[in-house]
Amino acid sequence: MVALAGGVGGAKLAHGLAQILEPEQLTVVVNTADDFQHLGLAISPDLDTVMYTLAGIANPETGWGIRGDTFEFLGALGRLGGEAWFRLGDRDLATHVERSRRLWAGESLTQITRELSRSLGVGPTILPMTDEWVRTIVETDEGDLEFQDYFVRRHCEPRVTGFHFKGLDDANPTREVMNVLEAADAIIICPSNPFVSVDPILNLAGVRDGVGRGGRPVVAVSPIVGGQAIKGPAAKMLAELDYSVSALAVAEHYRGLITGFVLDNVDAALAPEIESGDLRVLVTDTVMKSDADRARLAREVVDFVTAG
Amino acid sequence: MVALAGGVGGAKLAHGLAQILEPEQLTVVVNTADDFQHLGLAISPDLDTVMYTLAGIANPETGWGIRGDTFEFLGALGRLGGEAWFRLGDRDLATHVERSRRLWAGESLTQITRELSRSLGVGPTILPMTDEWVRTIVETDEGDLEFQDYFVRRHCEPRVTGFHFKGLDDANPTREVMNVLEAADAIIICPSNPFVSVDPILNLAGVRDGVGRGGRPVVAVSPIVGGQAIKGPAAKMLAELDYSVSALAVAEHYRGLITGFVLDNVDAALAPEIESGDLRVLVTDTVMKSDADRARLAREVVDFVTAG
Repeated sequence: MVALAGGVGGAKLAHGLAQILEPEQLTVVVNTADDFQHLGLAISPDLDTVMYTLAGIANPETGWGIRGDTFEFLGALGRLGGEAWFRLGDRDLATHVERSRRLWAGESLTQITRELSRSLGVGPTILPMTDEWVRTIVETDEGDLEFQDYFVRRHCEPRVTGFHFKGLDDANPTREVMNVLEAADAIIICPSNPFVSVDPILNLAGVRDGVGRGGRPVVAVSPIVGGQAIKGPAAKMLAELDYSVSALAVAEHYRGLITGFVLDNVDAALAPEIESGDLRVLVTDTVMKSDADRARLAREVVDFVTAG
Repeated sequence: MVALAGGVGGAKLAHGLAQILEPEQLTVVVNTADDFQHLGLAISPDLDTVMYTLAGIANPETGWGIRGDTFEFLGALGRLGGEAWFRLGDRDLATHVERSRRLWAGESLTQITRELSRSLGVGPTILPMTDEWVRTIVETDEGDLEFQDYFVRRHCEPRVTGFHFKGLDDANPTREVMNVLEAADAIIICPSNPFVSVDPILNLAGVRDGVGRGGRPVVAVSPIVGGQAIKGPAAKMLAELDYSVSALAVAEHYRGLITGFVLDNVDAALAPEIESGDLRVLVTDTVMKSDADRARLAREVVDFVTAG
């Protein structure tokens, strides 16, 4: 089973899958287009969120960062006049420093992620989508913004008019990603932001074809529930880009690639229109508040996929 | 007044001088030859010790690092399999990250030190001896070791056979250092390690001549008291290099450059032999246990210097 994931929402379903599958049955391919350099460090927010969540150490309040982390570094940095807008916890910082050191020493992000994951006791394989640099640029009414600049520093306030991905055309998915896509029995697109979390993965050379190949089930779980995003700016982006803010818009976004779609009970009325194409549909409770919710949804999604 | 200083011992006397002089009356020129790169960060242990001490935030137990600092980063780094042998506190780390970021962005160590010092509320000017890279190599019976490798990781255990300073011949003192040496009424060599803290400063092109020029008082304070170093490996180094482990050996090391020497009451018996050359001598209590001790010694040293 291969899951494609971005940050918090994707990590939750990935964690559910990790609870019900054997480690060797699951690979999570993670977006790296919102990676950035900050304070001279290489930061991979989505990789870390997935890694910390699967390690069971994610901060349950925020979804990102490490539970119980302290912020002494950030406080001191602020007092020195440094850029303290990106919330880096003291323990979290160790990940960025160690990753950066190894990257500058020539190791690949894939290799580093494997070893950091192992150190944290993560069972399933976590793969960055690429070892090359891809950068999400959010086009807004205030000009182009790097993703973290838009997302964290500007709190998603500027109105979005589009996206582009610097470096994407020149980047390649890793051999490891192409191999797991080739070997997968099914592919699950986690409830992550379609525009800035999943599209960068799918738009890498060969990935969309690799996902769609061979008549395997490809199932997406809607990140939009009742017209709202559980987390993050997906709903705001849909509205600003003149889409309907609904699970239907997400299903349409993936239509042609996916064979099945999972949406929430509150959106059950949308099921007929989604099914009217060639899509199978699962309507269930998709909001994951507890570890048990994650495992239950993962079980239902796997059963749905397997039945397809 | 210009003080030449290394780490903890030098920082204490510099702090005493800072207590009794106006900020514009004091410049501390600091050794950077034990700077190193670690975890991809540029670390300047002596500069930081002087800066934290003058800012009143140094850890009083160790002399280095920040009082009350936490070690969450270091713990997490260890769990990730990273190199955790160099004790980096969470708040201390902010200094290294911010300094590194600015260095890589092209700012000079002099400029960065000025701004970090200002952020921490330090009054006197702290100048790195050079903006270029000089690296102390400790020659030992186990081969050449980078200074921090010898000092921290190996706890000064290998037997020292000599020193050399990579990059020293190609490095220049900064314009700021040469200007303050030119303008100084007197120069105080703090009770720092003669071999690895003071010699790198003196051996920079033009500095020894700049210090000795113009018949000004140049006074050194002995870091050796009663045959022992107050802090650090100076005594062990003297012994391994077949010097007598005494204030006399320190005075001889600086003879020809200094005009006066300060040694501790417990070493009063050495005073006649030190004076037998052309040196003035001050015998007093040189052990600084409190801020008041530092101010008192600084006052005595300044009076001694001024009387010369």
